[in-house]
Amino acid sequence: MPQSPDSSDQRPADRVVLAHGGGGELTRRLLAERIIPKLANDLLAPLADSAVIDAPPGKLCMTTDAFVVQPLEFAGGDIGRLAVCGTVNDLVVMGAKPLALSLALVLEEGLGLDLLDRVMDSIAAAAAEAGVVIATGDTKVVERRGADGMTVTTAGIGSLPADMPPDATTIAAGDAVIVSGLLAEHGLAVMSARKGLGIRTTLASDVAPLGGLVEAMLASGGRVKFMRDPTRGGLAGLLADLSEQLARNIELDEQALPISPAARHASELLGLDPLTIANEGKVVAVVAASDAEKVLAACRAHPLGAAAAIVGRIGETSDWPLVELLTCAGGRRIVQRPYGEELPRIC
Amino acid sequence: MPQSPDSSDQRPADRVVLAHGGGGELTRRLLAERIIPKLANDLLAPLADSAVIDAPPGKLCMTTDAFVVQPLEFAGGDIGRLAVCGTVNDLVVMGAKPLALSLALVLEEGLGLDLLDRVMDSIAAAAAEAGVVIATGDTKVVERRGADGMTVTTAGIGSLPADMPPDATTIAAGDAVIVSGLLAEHGLAVMSARKGLGIRTTLASDVAPLGGLVEAMLASGGRVKFMRDPTRGGLAGLLADLSEQLARNIELDEQALPISPAARHASELLGLDPLTIANEGKVVAVVAASDAEKVLAACRAHPLGAAAAIVGRIGETSDWPLVELLTCAGGRRIVQRPYGEELPRIC
Repeated sequence: MPQSPDSSDQRPADRVVLAHGGGGELTRRLLAERIIPKLANDLLAPLADSAVIDAPPGKLCMTTDAFVVQPLEFAGGDIGRLAVCGTVNDLVVMGAKPLALSLALVLEEGLGLDLLDRVMDSIAAAAAEAGVVIATGDTKVVERRGADGMTVTTAGIGSLPADMPPDATTIAAGDAVIVSGLLAEHGLAVMSARKGLGIRTTLASDVAPLGGLVEAMLASGGRVKFMRDPTRGGLAGLLADLSEQLARNIELDEQALPISPAARHASELLGLDPLTIANEGKVVAVVAASDAEKVLAACRAHPLGAAAAIVGRIGETSDWPLVELLTCAGGRRIVQRPYGEELPRIC
Repeated sequence: MPQSPDSSDQRPADRVVLAHGGGGELTRRLLAERIIPKLANDLLAPLADSAVIDAPPGKLCMTTDAFVVQPLEFAGGDIGRLAVCGTVNDLVVMGAKPLALSLALVLEEGLGLDLLDRVMDSIAAAAAEAGVVIATGDTKVVERRGADGMTVTTAGIGSLPADMPPDATTIAAGDAVIVSGLLAEHGLAVMSARKGLGIRTTLASDVAPLGGLVEAMLASGGRVKFMRDPTRGGLAGLLADLSEQLARNIELDEQALPISPAARHASELLGLDPLTIANEGKVVAVVAASDAEKVLAACRAHPLGAAAAIVGRIGETSDWPLVELLTCAGGRRIVQRPYGEELPRIC
């Protein structure tokens, strides 16, 4: 169960104190006892100012994400799993193979060390699941303020294979838009875990590393022209960006959107559009129309892609490109990038 | 002058709001208007989930740092310059050439956009000075709490040249310890900028990118066996770590330590040992004794190394390795890793 860093009856010795961040003996102990052993790997082991990594020849990908999710633990995951998966997924949707992650922790004074332990275990487990190591890191401590507890920032590098990765410039009218599974579950699970909202739901975050699923889709033989994971801003934000970037309209079929009844219900309770809600274990792909069924089949054959669907298509070029939803009732509605404040601190 | 994010009379429109972090239209505008234009470069421009980087063949270095310095602006620098230089320096002391940085911002609701602008300008200037680009980034917003304003986390990758970088395993008794300039100025400048301490000093942070200085030292022809920048924990923390790692004693000459009268004075006022105070533009090198003068001369010929000095020597192996200070009075004092709480949030 999610647990606030404030809620337990731990003694001061069981909590993070400012001195843990001073770079002295207490910092050394915190790292040596609670952080480094969880991440044990050959790259991290020398504990030098930088990790030394053997990269295969060719192009590299690099990405970073800061995670400020509240609460720190929620059904289906926690801030640690989220940080590893979020950064790994930003690499794999580019067609890259993750080589190494960095991990920067900002801990709040008063954070329970048991919670830190759980998050570190979760980081280690997610990294193992994704087949990547934490090569380097940094830990700082700030004064107690809210019950924020911690922020986690990961960066990642990956190697791009010599054959071409997805290339959005080849996208053409008629190409299919595929979504790899049920939408909106991460954001709804986090919102439901917040105190005071009083929402009961069976929803769990979908947070997962997407390397295997993406590999299966790329190996299907279908031409995958674009991939991205619909995190902050949801599918709506992703497609609004893509539509603008391509200067093309995009059509979505409401009926085809994979959204569970529980997610529909929770979205209605919260007054939110599931299309704008963050996902952390889904990929959106644009695929040549003739290859769509092939890529879809590969996606569905993977455990993380069982509920995949073709949800729309790329339209003509336009000076005012729009994303349009063809509603179940037969109407048309413009899908807009959310303005901003519906879902603070969801990742 | 340092300015608290709370102190000005800006209208709400001139401040960061939670909606800036929601991944929607306001996030897009914040990035498009205030962040991306400052960092303009070819790697960042595609704004994909990851930047694509051409890396030379061979080994890579990777590092990360989270910066939580308070106040955000201080004499000689700000959190932006600190973040760029801190990560660049962790690469260059490994002998690596920086290729790209990532930049993750966590902004606090209420942060003045003018302060954000200044920090972004500073990040851009420091990156240009260091000859590196910000290839990828992320921006999040958290609720208002203290007057923290923002944290900045950078990660960096660099390429290691084919010839051998510094290798601490070659360190032997008698090797010289060189410090590249005046100690303790960063930490003291930041402490002096804190409200309520009432300390007046002419000290400014030494925060600077060390690539050129390190290159000059490596090009001197002297055998540089180890380099590290003495940040959190200061020279004392660095040498305590090194002594432990090598299982060797280290001797320091108090008389040789480059510490300005202003820094001595401010340290005394604050009750701090200048050896434990963070530096952000200095390098500590271990050099074969016979090459020490050569490396020192190269260091002094560089603008950032004018006050460099040979400050000590590596001793014999020991089961209980110690760092000892030979005091001006002719005594001996054990130099310990600081415990932790003297200098919170100095970087």
